[in-house]
Amino acid sequence: MRIVAGRRSEALAQEVADRLGTPLAEVERHKFPDGELYVRIPHRFDGEDVAVVASTRTNDDLVELLLLLDAVREQDAGRVVAAVPYYAYARQDQRFKEGEAFSADVVARMLAIYADGLLIVDPHKSSILASFDGDQGEVSAVPELAEYFQDKGVDLVLAPDAGARGRAQMAAEHIGVDHDHLEKTRIDAETVEMRTKDLDVSGKTVAIVDDIISTGGTMARAVAQLTEQGAKAVYCAATHGLLIGGGVEKLEAAGVAGIVVTDTIPGDHSRVSAAPALVRGLKAMWGVETADAVRP
Amino acid sequence: MRIVAGRRSEALAQEVADRLGTPLAEVERHKFPDGELYVRIPHRFDGEDVAVVASTRTNDDLVELLLLLDAVREQDAGRVVAAVPYYAYARQDQRFKEGEAFSADVVARMLAIYADGLLIVDPHKSSILASFDGDQGEVSAVPELAEYFQDKGVDLVLAPDAGARGRAQMAAEHIGVDHDHLEKTRIDAETVEMRTKDLDVSGKTVAIVDDIISTGGTMARAVAQLTEQGAKAVYCAATHGLLIGGGVEKLEAAGVAGIVVTDTIPGDHSRVSAAPALVRGLKAMWGVETADAVRP
Repeated sequence: MRIVAGRRSEALAQEVADRLGTPLAEVERHKFPDGELYVRIPHRFDGEDVAVVASTRTNDDLVELLLLLDAVREQDAGRVVAAVPYYAYARQDQRFKEGEAFSADVVARMLAIYADGLLIVDPHKSSILASFDGDQGEVSAVPELAEYFQDKGVDLVLAPDAGARGRAQMAAEHIGVDHDHLEKTRIDAETVEMRTKDLDVSGKTVAIVDDIISTGGTMARAVAQLTEQGAKAVYCAATHGLLIGGGVEKLEAAGVAGIVVTDTIPGDHSRVSAAPALVRGLKAMWGVETADAVRP
Repeated sequence: MRIVAGRRSEALAQEVADRLGTPLAEVERHKFPDGELYVRIPHRFDGEDVAVVASTRTNDDLVELLLLLDAVREQDAGRVVAAVPYYAYARQDQRFKEGEAFSADVVARMLAIYADGLLIVDPHKSSILASFDGDQGEVSAVPELAEYFQDKGVDLVLAPDAGARGRAQMAAEHIGVDHDHLEKTRIDAETVEMRTKDLDVSGKTVAIVDDIISTGGTMARAVAQLTEQGAKAVYCAATHGLLIGGGVEKLEAAGVAGIVVTDTIPGDHSRVSAAPALVRGLKAMWGVETADAVRP
């Protein structure tokens, strides 16, 4: 298998390639003055399988991924997997109202023109994979996030709500600590109380785990309230760190002990690599040949 | 037929709808803080044909067009035509080098997921339509550009090179004047001489016609040299006015008498509407029912 990197995922793709002991294929890319993208892949694959590792943080990234997939096909790739660390439009994962575009489905259908397989790291919901006509794979970077907490002495992992409890459980079990989820109670028009369902947080070093931190509003409220309720320290963790709209400032103002996200969206708080997760996903999907070169 | 407008083509789509005597369907659209787009079309089409009029000037526009097409389908449209005034990636209309993405083809294949027909106004090359699996239509706004010149007293229409001569001829015949094309002769490393192949420009009011003005470099050199060669006035015209990289300033510095482009890319120099061209194209493609409401 060969690895091809999207513009936003060059470091991550290199790490995946290193772990698989396979070279990263060269990509020539530029942006024309009018904003159109150009890609060229000089290497001929001669039937070898190819994984295009490309987060689709913006519409530019998404279009570039499609251009890369076309170029990969042109260069005689065998099976092609779109390995998408951060999947665009994952939160528009259904038609919430009649007449809405089902955007996550549109993305999957475009990718299916070119890709035989689709691998997503921590999709907002697993159901979006069903839109893809081909081999479907999902993998989580939560074990890597959990290992980061372990070093920080975290002894309780929390999900921000019941629906996200699976990820908290995965993290907690990975490092052998307790988990719980937060429940919200509306007190009045301005106030929502957030409390753990079962376990006491006082004196605990806590990590809240979600798939994505976007503007950080809910996480910041949780940090403030858990601290009031006696938590010793509160970490905020997610696979995908959008951290837009002053998210970091909000979390810091609430007294967060640390923010940790992976490099699916590279940024200042990408303290954990999603590469091991992607490698697990690629191996699970097609039993990628990696021979002796693979790192443990 | 109903008309749906892309974000960059609302005024143009309204004009098309008015000329066809059919309403523009309402579109709810917004951009999330992370840059992702949202579209919703509340109207149910109940089997009626739909034309989505949307220039794809940017990758955002392109993704929005795909979301609109998905929403149109969801709302029970009959046949759906993507009516694309300015078609993204039209200049990457082949693989010029091995391993390049064939970007114009990628766009056509994405549109073909949702659209039964593709209509393009003055594509850079007609060949890009062949990438689209469905009904293909091409239409020119050159007659409308020619009518604009006629009012300015243009008596000679020029193509910037032999390959673009067809458009110059179309414009010239439409208003009953002569046409010719420019030939370039390299004098030395810095100098390229541009002259008409057959006809003398001295004392003439000239219009140079192309499909697109991008940075305006070649057009500006032509304006300067034709003026030196005695032309009374030189107009620059194209269907698509990108006019990036200081294009307008370059043309004005060269002494252009006027710049005229259509509203396929709306801007300060959009002095002509592509709506009549789109209406011709829609009628030619599916014999659109327009009844008495159509304007002449």
